[in-house]
Amino acid sequence: MRIVSLSKDISLKRPLEMGNAEQMKTVKMVLADVKSRGDAAIAEYSEKWDRVKLHEFRVSTEEINHAKANFDAELLKDLEEAAHNIRVFHEKQKRSSYQVDVENGSFIGQRVSPLDAVGLYVPGGSAAYPSSVLMNVIPAQVAGVERIVIVSPPNDQGALPDAVLVAASILGIEEIYKIGGAQAIAALAYGTESISPVDKITGPGNVFVALAKREVFGVVAIDMIAGPSEIAIIADETAYADEVAADLLSQAEHDPMACPILLTTSDFFAHEVAHEVEKQLTKLPREKIARAAVEKFGRIYVAETMEDIVEAVNKLAPEHLEIMTSNPQVVAQQVRHAGAIFIGRYSSEPIGDYFAGTNHVLPTNSTARFSSPLSVDDFIKKTSIIYYTQETWLQHAPKIARLARMEGLEGHARAVESRGWAKEMDQS
Amino acid sequence: MRIVSLSKDISLKRPLEMGNAEQMKTVKMVLADVKSRGDAAIAEYSEKWDRVKLHEFRVSTEEINHAKANFDAELLKDLEEAAHNIRVFHEKQKRSSYQVDVENGSFIGQRVSPLDAVGLYVPGGSAAYPSSVLMNVIPAQVAGVERIVIVSPPNDQGALPDAVLVAASILGIEEIYKIGGAQAIAALAYGTESISPVDKITGPGNVFVALAKREVFGVVAIDMIAGPSEIAIIADETAYADEVAADLLSQAEHDPMACPILLTTSDFFAHEVAHEVEKQLTKLPREKIARAAVEKFGRIYVAETMEDIVEAVNKLAPEHLEIMTSNPQVVAQQVRHAGAIFIGRYSSEPIGDYFAGTNHVLPTNSTARFSSPLSVDDFIKKTSIIYYTQETWLQHAPKIARLARMEGLEGHARAVESRGWAKEMDQS
Repeated sequence: MRIVSLSKDISLKRPLEMGNAEQMKTVKMVLADVKSRGDAAIAEYSEKWDRVKLHEFRVSTEEINHAKANFDAELLKDLEEAAHNIRVFHEKQKRSSYQVDVENGSFIGQRVSPLDAVGLYVPGGSAAYPSSVLMNVIPAQVAGVERIVIVSPPNDQGALPDAVLVAASILGIEEIYKIGGAQAIAALAYGTESISPVDKITGPGNVFVALAKREVFGVVAIDMIAGPSEIAIIADETAYADEVAADLLSQAEHDPMACPILLTTSDFFAHEVAHEVEKQLTKLPREKIARAAVEKFGRIYVAETMEDIVEAVNKLAPEHLEIMTSNPQVVAQQVRHAGAIFIGRYSSEPIGDYFAGTNHVLPTNSTARFSSPLSVDDFIKKTSIIYYTQETWLQHAPKIARLARMEGLEGHARAVESRGWAKEMDQS
Repeated sequence: MRIVSLSKDISLKRPLEMGNAEQMKTVKMVLADVKSRGDAAIAEYSEKWDRVKLHEFRVSTEEINHAKANFDAELLKDLEEAAHNIRVFHEKQKRSSYQVDVENGSFIGQRVSPLDAVGLYVPGGSAAYPSSVLMNVIPAQVAGVERIVIVSPPNDQGALPDAVLVAASILGIEEIYKIGGAQAIAALAYGTESISPVDKITGPGNVFVALAKREVFGVVAIDMIAGPSEIAIIADETAYADEVAADLLSQAEHDPMACPILLTTSDFFAHEVAHEVEKQLTKLPREKIARAAVEKFGRIYVAETMEDIVEAVNKLAPEHLEIMTSNPQVVAQQVRHAGAIFIGRYSSEPIGDYFAGTNHVLPTNSTARFSSPLSVDDFIKKTSIIYYTQETWLQHAPKIARLARMEGLEGHARAVESRGWAKEMDQS
């Protein structure tokens, strides 16, 4: 892992472009085709890309029961405990409607209500991501969303992983479709004969899924388009090099484009960590992926002072930030921009990925400057309410008409004046 | 105005496309040019499109004082009262950070903090929109944003309207630039020698501004891309045709693409309103714009029952909804999807545009199904905090490692195990 001096123009330096023209063309074609031909198009694309002939997209109760019966009891308990922790954390994000009373019985207010229906994309293929199910479904449930749909590409036997079905089952989700790729996004956005459309699509996916989500944005809402994972670790000489190296690699193993960064005030520690990273890399099952990330985007920055490091981190606004210094709480207070901050030696990043209760869907690519972790807020919407009585209207109509005329909007002024007072005054 | 029977497949039926290829090319060129040449490029585009040679982009204290000295005292009071109402309403949207205690001194939490810097685009040219200043700046101030910048295109004398400067001055905003168009969006997103970049850009603008905002999205955050205005009015025979017509025209006068819709159970009332619309149209200063909107997108839907109307409105999810029926509060409860709901005869829509206190930046184009009015939420962001003690880590690490291995992420499992217990157990 390269060791460099910290400089003022630090950035993640990753390309922001997603997908190429060929991929975009394919996505547009699939979206249009599913929009016009519905289920028939879905079935064809499933056969083509998932290599499976589906007679029924929806997962049956039998399949879910079978998955539960097969599932490891200890892992089931782990998932249930994680789900509980996630629910407790997200319950605190619930919002209430409110009302501000004006005079004479008039009021204005904000009504908070859940979205009607949301769809969650769970990546599939060779791996199983039950944690994605928990992290996306639970905030939607806490928000009060009535219809929650899961889509996920099946294996070549036409099945979804037991772990995904069990995670869904723990949460009481029963509308699950064995479809993936851009065709699944199209089904959720436009609907087909067998799948009703939703209002928002969340969850990660490959480049086709990401491009499709961006393309249907506006027809439905989407969550962020997540980029490759990032971790920045602030560590001084009180940290342990092997632990820091292990945490850097935990993110590097996600993606060859992942970005593992260490910022330290100790040149000696920098070299220790570089050595440990190399040592651990050779033993890692996903060595190839992790090594690509470490070599291309991995950096160890050595800085003069902790102040310089904090300034750099606020510029990077990393998705994950770990702080392993003699006074991690103090440093955490100084960091303004990060998706999630893991404080101290024992707060290893995977704790947040799976278990603590915070959401693992976090803003990437420096967008933590202005974006937030996935939360209950992503599954509600607000409506303004205005109720003016005759007395309140009478009192304020002249002011509103003046303001409208100042902006050259005579029609606005006449509308507010149309309720009687001006009629009596004979406005013509 | 066309009168038709309400049918099940009601929709706003407006094209979603924004801008053409030529306009997009211009915008991309301007963005790239300002990014590379900064102030010099801005000055050139201002001369080209705003027909003004600017030696200084920033509005001076003298200009602001001059605007205040010139300003009508009654209008100043109106603006101040509107600002007060808006502030009171938005204060209720403030969020608090929270913390969930885990065992042994561990905790997880959500930190809420304001964005560092935001830029507000105020449309200009021939008209002045001080209400845009109030509606965008106040939520940002309530959120606690420290740096709020206004950009607005000047007239050909190189000046901004007094009303805009006075509105900004009421709110204490002093960083105002006399620049507009895509070049202003570029300056806010990338920064120039004289203008520091911001984290989020809000506010309406013409097609070039909208395209530029969409293009810089990701580098900075943006608010929604607002489409043409919409109003749906639910009215029965207890309503007054002239008042309903005036309110329909108040939105029609905004834009030839605006969409004024009436839904009623009374065929007689439908014809009354159609007659009134025509009568009032001929006297409207902005007749040409309003007439285009009425003829192209205006509709009066006659329905059998109020239930059918509510169902249709929930499909339309209109930006503005007025309810003028014998029991408007009951109908309002049944509507799930609208940007803002105006209840009863005296709650004419312009009340919300200027004065009541709710925000006039509202979701258009049926996006009220999943989007919300501009609010304090748009100017804050959240950060997750995770702090695990040694005891808590010790208790849960085996579960977290199991969950990670289930997903095939051995590096995650090793990271969480690296803190000692596994070392002691000799993990190799």
